[in-house]
Amino acid sequence: MHEVKVGVIGFGTVGAGVVRLLLQNRAVIEKRLGFPLTLAKVADLDVTTDRGIQVPASLLTTDAGEVIEDPDIPLVVELIGGLEPARTFTLQALGKGKGVVTANKALLAHHWQELCGASQEGGGRLGFEASVGGGIPVIRALREGLVANRIESIHGIINGTSNYILTRMSEEGLDFETALRRAQEMGYAEADPGLDIDGGDAAHKLAILASLAFDTCVPLEKIYTEGISGISLIDLEIARELGYVVKLLAVAKAGGERVEARVHPTMIPKGHLLATVGDVFNAIYIRGDAVGPTLLYGLGAGSLPTASAVVADLVEMARSIRTGGGPSPFRITLEEERPIVPMEEVRCPCYIRFMSPDRPGILAAISGVLARHEISIASVIQRGREAGSAVPIVMMTHSAREASVRAALDEIAGRQVVTAPPVCIRVEESGEESSE
Amino acid sequence: MHEVKVGVIGFGTVGAGVVRLLLQNRAVIEKRLGFPLTLAKVADLDVTTDRGIQVPASLLTTDAGEVIEDPDIPLVVELIGGLEPARTFTLQALGKGKGVVTANKALLAHHWQELCGASQEGGGRLGFEASVGGGIPVIRALREGLVANRIESIHGIINGTSNYILTRMSEEGLDFETALRRAQEMGYAEADPGLDIDGGDAAHKLAILASLAFDTCVPLEKIYTEGISGISLIDLEIARELGYVVKLLAVAKAGGERVEARVHPTMIPKGHLLATVGDVFNAIYIRGDAVGPTLLYGLGAGSLPTASAVVADLVEMARSIRTGGGPSPFRITLEEERPIVPMEEVRCPCYIRFMSPDRPGILAAISGVLARHEISIASVIQRGREAGSAVPIVMMTHSAREASVRAALDEIAGRQVVTAPPVCIRVEESGEESSE
Repeated sequence: MHEVKVGVIGFGTVGAGVVRLLLQNRAVIEKRLGFPLTLAKVADLDVTTDRGIQVPASLLTTDAGEVIEDPDIPLVVELIGGLEPARTFTLQALGKGKGVVTANKALLAHHWQELCGASQEGGGRLGFEASVGGGIPVIRALREGLVANRIESIHGIINGTSNYILTRMSEEGLDFETALRRAQEMGYAEADPGLDIDGGDAAHKLAILASLAFDTCVPLEKIYTEGISGISLIDLEIARELGYVVKLLAVAKAGGERVEARVHPTMIPKGHLLATVGDVFNAIYIRGDAVGPTLLYGLGAGSLPTASAVVADLVEMARSIRTGGGPSPFRITLEEERPIVPMEEVRCPCYIRFMSPDRPGILAAISGVLARHEISIASVIQRGREAGSAVPIVMMTHSAREASVRAALDEIAGRQVVTAPPVCIRVEESGEESSE
Repeated sequence: MHEVKVGVIGFGTVGAGVVRLLLQNRAVIEKRLGFPLTLAKVADLDVTTDRGIQVPASLLTTDAGEVIEDPDIPLVVELIGGLEPARTFTLQALGKGKGVVTANKALLAHHWQELCGASQEGGGRLGFEASVGGGIPVIRALREGLVANRIESIHGIINGTSNYILTRMSEEGLDFETALRRAQEMGYAEADPGLDIDGGDAAHKLAILASLAFDTCVPLEKIYTEGISGISLIDLEIARELGYVVKLLAVAKAGGERVEARVHPTMIPKGHLLATVGDVFNAIYIRGDAVGPTLLYGLGAGSLPTASAVVADLVEMARSIRTGGGPSPFRITLEEERPIVPMEEVRCPCYIRFMSPDRPGILAAISGVLARHEISIASVIQRGREAGSAVPIVMMTHSAREASVRAALDEIAGRQVVTAPPVCIRVEESGEESSE
């Protein structure tokens, strides 16, 4: 049977992984597919750097147009990253009826409606399994494996860099800066770790997951996003004493017609499966009305894991081309059909740590403010006292409205009862039972 | 757009779940699919028992032929269980070019080549996501999400009943009989728990997973299968002291051209993700050459979780019908292209417990026999002594050949150095790194 040709635009880390995988596993892919999936062209501005892979010089080009314009290449892989020219290339290829596979979560999150619209209305197809969770087939799970479910909630560890940093802080007692440097030394974090550390990357991915899961466009700008740079060792230690671990979680929930979507450091019970997901691993915990709780786990980044997802999309599209079927994927709802709950209205239990002078009346003052804001306290932990220095007072609250917590903390911060701004970490536990 | 009609044969627990799900989530399925998936007929010998679902009487029939023969019903769900008439019905429907969805792992394991052959050579299609891991989309992971990978190994907890029993024994100190009774009371085990307890059900599922993963037919009768009824509390306790838990694991590995496939109680390090999978939950740990380690977790049985997988297959087939594409799935290799390693040649580290009279020379005698069979001992634990009674001697071996272990244990059992047959539990740890 005739081959189907693939052109790759972007010969960086993931691009090299895709090229390697197409060459190295060519035989097994052909066996499963019934015909060859052939690498026909690799475009990059830099075609001279040695990527450690033997690619015939005739396949290399510095002109992306040679991939996009070639009528013999029906499948295009976009791996250049960034918003432009990735967006233009993707739209051009879709416009020609090609299948486009991308790992570019920023592009998808910023131009979701435009890109998904172009693939659904035009003759092309857009594959983005690689955009969330690296090689973990989570997009397929939402579009296919769990397609019969109303998705109730998603809890994801979907940024490997921040998970690595929090794991090293928690397990080795490294402070944030040291753990970040270690991540950079290990190649897990960029020189500029911005989007990983500040939650932006996880928010890109959550926009994609939540939009699929809840059949409504969840716009990136409506996802509340808070990173991990404010997490201190003392909070990780107290969390452990209380039976929790702290993870950067991407959380999305369907409540009636509305949808919650947020990214922030989160305390989860140490018995929860997500609590055991360490270092650069990713995991997505999805609850559906029929399937119940499920979890998918694996490497969320890296050259070959990400390539595994890219080639999976290519195989699916190649099959569709060969069998003559038109584009037939999950129909993505492009409109914002369901309102996003403003963060102020979200309710969570909270861990709140105050640093206070060790004198009488402090606890009464703090708890009085919380009570006036209708924040109910589940437990209080006051730690050992050293003469003259501030002591931590930790309160675990029952489920409280975000706006009330913020107002209460602002009020407390403005008084003489704390020596530093209070720290608040949201807690997730309700309804997410442990595996044991 | 026109609907696609579904007929269900078998209105038992899973059948009722499928009917419920098709009715209850009809709107969301239609939204994602672009057209309705309509329940057209439900066949069962018993159509009078109340299943708690409103099904119009006109849809009910006692004649499976009304589903199989109806040219307006292109999709058939087989949920009657057992080998016949399930096999005949499935072949008849495939022969008419229909899509058939089944949760029947026994049927698939016993008639793999015939059924997959009929679906690949004829015009029909066979879907069996529900046959392994309930609602966990593991078949899709192997056929699609991980299709670009050479699969290196599979470690699965794929029988919920035995996992429940082992979890309750381990956590509550129940003995096997009590834990089994509890499982029966909870509805997790049948009155005749045979296939769950003796590993047969897990072997059925492993035959399916391994055949897909390794692109070769792995015949059921070549899978070494050992159940959990020989597991004693003392072994679970010692395992915990040594940092292990005991699970009924389905293990499959590719080593060169050959394939290993076996089901038996297995000690795994307590830091491994699979060790945290408790009660009736299932999980499948899959290692691919590109993706690295992945895990899929969820409920492996139950009416709605299994229905979730059945309807996922129906949705996929309905799409294929609508877009005019022919059958286009993963090509299954029907022949035994790769030899199965005979169990005698498999190498594992082992936990071996001897009950011995407490007198001098026993350890020397036992270790002498092991040495002659080239079994190298990694550590020895001898537990507290009570005058007159037998004491446990536990040896952890380095990786040893199964045939050697059996010969050594037979030789030791024939001597006066043990008061009961030695207990041997295989250990899995090499190369399966913890998530932390």
